[in-house]
Amino acid sequence: MDLKAYVRECALRAREAATRMAVLGPGTRERALLAMATAIGDCAGQIREANAKDVDAGRAAGLPTAMIDRLTLTNTRIKGMRRAVAEIAAQPDLVGEIEHLVRRPSGIEVGKMRVPIGVIGIIYEARPNVTADAAALCVKTGNACILRGGREAINSNVILARVLAEAATSAGLPGHAIQLIEVIDRETVIHLAQAEGLVDLIVARGGESLIRAVVEAARVPVMKHYKGVCHTYVDASADLAMAEAVCLNAKVQRPGVCNAMETLLVHRDVADQFLPPMFEKYRAAGVELRGCERVRAIDPTVKPATEDDWYAEYLDLILAVRIVDAIGEAIEHIRKYGSAHTDAIVTKDVTAARRFVREVDSSSVMVNASTRLSDGGEYGLGAEIGISTDKLHARGPVGAAELTTYKWVVYGEGTIRE
Amino acid sequence: MDLKAYVRECALRAREAATRMAVLGPGTRERALLAMATAIGDCAGQIREANAKDVDAGRAAGLPTAMIDRLTLTNTRIKGMRRAVAEIAAQPDLVGEIEHLVRRPSGIEVGKMRVPIGVIGIIYEARPNVTADAAALCVKTGNACILRGGREAINSNVILARVLAEAATSAGLPGHAIQLIEVIDRETVIHLAQAEGLVDLIVARGGESLIRAVVEAARVPVMKHYKGVCHTYVDASADLAMAEAVCLNAKVQRPGVCNAMETLLVHRDVADQFLPPMFEKYRAAGVELRGCERVRAIDPTVKPATEDDWYAEYLDLILAVRIVDAIGEAIEHIRKYGSAHTDAIVTKDVTAARRFVREVDSSSVMVNASTRLSDGGEYGLGAEIGISTDKLHARGPVGAAELTTYKWVVYGEGTIRE
Repeated sequence: MDLKAYVRECALRAREAATRMAVLGPGTRERALLAMATAIGDCAGQIREANAKDVDAGRAAGLPTAMIDRLTLTNTRIKGMRRAVAEIAAQPDLVGEIEHLVRRPSGIEVGKMRVPIGVIGIIYEARPNVTADAAALCVKTGNACILRGGREAINSNVILARVLAEAATSAGLPGHAIQLIEVIDRETVIHLAQAEGLVDLIVARGGESLIRAVVEAARVPVMKHYKGVCHTYVDASADLAMAEAVCLNAKVQRPGVCNAMETLLVHRDVADQFLPPMFEKYRAAGVELRGCERVRAIDPTVKPATEDDWYAEYLDLILAVRIVDAIGEAIEHIRKYGSAHTDAIVTKDVTAARRFVREVDSSSVMVNASTRLSDGGEYGLGAEIGISTDKLHARGPVGAAELTTYKWVVYGEGTIRE
Repeated sequence: MDLKAYVRECALRAREAATRMAVLGPGTRERALLAMATAIGDCAGQIREANAKDVDAGRAAGLPTAMIDRLTLTNTRIKGMRRAVAEIAAQPDLVGEIEHLVRRPSGIEVGKMRVPIGVIGIIYEARPNVTADAAALCVKTGNACILRGGREAINSNVILARVLAEAATSAGLPGHAIQLIEVIDRETVIHLAQAEGLVDLIVARGGESLIRAVVEAARVPVMKHYKGVCHTYVDASADLAMAEAVCLNAKVQRPGVCNAMETLLVHRDVADQFLPPMFEKYRAAGVELRGCERVRAIDPTVKPATEDDWYAEYLDLILAVRIVDAIGEAIEHIRKYGSAHTDAIVTKDVTAARRFVREVDSSSVMVNASTRLSDGGEYGLGAEIGISTDKLHARGPVGAAELTTYKWVVYGEGTIRE
């Protein structure tokens, strides 16, 4: 099979669909989303059947339990998927909104109109619910999407994409507004990322090696999420009870996700008082601790942390702990080892808070809050398709607004340039 | 010389400067800009001397007159450069602004803070005033810049970059906030575009082949300007006197720039009435006309347009003219042949205007206005560093705001995720 031609055909159909999508009103998009939600419910049986094949194949291939869990679609999860699509339908429609129309000395009125990006390729891994979320967010924003999920979920994704695409078309969307690349080969991802002029954006989620391969080959912009090495810094002036609550939540509330804390930094002035009871809480929650030498001087049962620990995204009940001499050292540590995802300070001192916010260059910077709050839903963006660790276009949670761009609209009355 | 190591050293110094720049207040940046403006005036003699070498070398190399003109720095142009930098100093400061701080149900307050992008590489060609504009816009926005101008202007650029960098440093900016790559070799551009982790953005202006080479090799985002094939469509309902004024201005007011009109599309119902007097005006202004067969049926002295003419960015007193049967055909023509830069409709019909604005996906879409108004200054953005024909992050004029990004800031009171 000529994979380049296969991907190109797919991208050409998407381009055509995008052109027609851009002309639709919000009513049609909303009807399509509601039809998609209904179809997920109506086809739950088929979806579960296809998913069972993936789960069986995954078990046979010896996939880890956590991955099997992510892959599995129960009735409850199918209902959740349906509800998520219906919620996206209910979000405000952004396309066509003009942000700020101003009258200029020449006599023109000029403003920025929010418009679809065009064709968006979305690369992701095991969870089949991403298929529904991604398709729905793209329909919401008037984009055509080309989905490329992981090998493990291929049967689930094929049926889901078909159900969603059929529902969308029957509700008035152009054909091929939602497509799935059914050939799972790294080559298809590369071709997709090189389809300059046909694909406008790649959203890449998943393993770092896959994302790096995409970025290296890409000729179209890639919005990506490398990793979340999130820090909490407990300042000398922190309310220690507050710090304990925030640091416990940031580590243990859901350790397997990107906004969970991986490294705890503590000011030396409060380390003696703060760490022993904090460690007790962590141990009660099953957290393994790895510390610098000064931490181990306070608690010798803590394992020594290596240089690798400071870079680690554990996604697990493991925490690296370091004592620092000053806020500047904490900021320097975050700059060196962090991934510019989400970093927090706990402090009562307004000057320290201001400095931390100013100097830490991460997609989310927090004062007296748990890094776990770094999330599109928590920020009020509605559904999100991921968290961008890039700096341009979208930073942090990627919701509907981040899947749009703008064009300048200018109204004159025969206005010319003098 | 190891060009990769040379560029990498330069990028490392810029990265360090960017970290220190991000911490500076607006006062320091403003002082630096005023010092830079003053220094341009104080060093005018040195600048003219270096420029004379470039001009002589250009003449000896047989550069076209238009390029020699763009290259030449007269006293008036040096004053203009100085004024441009002072004007950038006077623009409002955007860095640190929080756009929209909202309180969320969890108790956090969350908003987007405008922050510098970091290290910006700027690739451009003959005009040495871009050196001053680019450096000033980067200082304004708290970014460190690495400038890479064209071979033709190398002597002018070396002295300008030195004068600007020294003034900036003496006014309190970190060293290396403004750097120029002095080795002119396409390889340096490629290394710059591959410096992932050190360079955050490349702004590419100049020849299409250079830009394509950058995009192909790049691992960092590239903001680019391919070309401006701008259209004006004169609708059946147009006020023909208005159409004449707008179309004349769009073509002849300054034909050598990217927002000048290259193709005129006319509805068949008004072609007989509109074109003959319009052609008279064009000929009086020295415009060469190339038309479709239907245009030539009206005026056989018009040269036949080839398929290439519809794609052409003449940047000259040449105009392609086509008669279309309907607005849909005009939109289709623009989609096929245009460059998504700036396209205009002249019409009295509000439905036609709305349709054109909705369906034409260009960085600027205009109603009853000259494409020449597509400009950062005209839109009220202040100084611009170019016009982006990309869709993401920045579209259309790239001013100070487009050289910034945002981070989310979150304030809690010990807030955790439930």
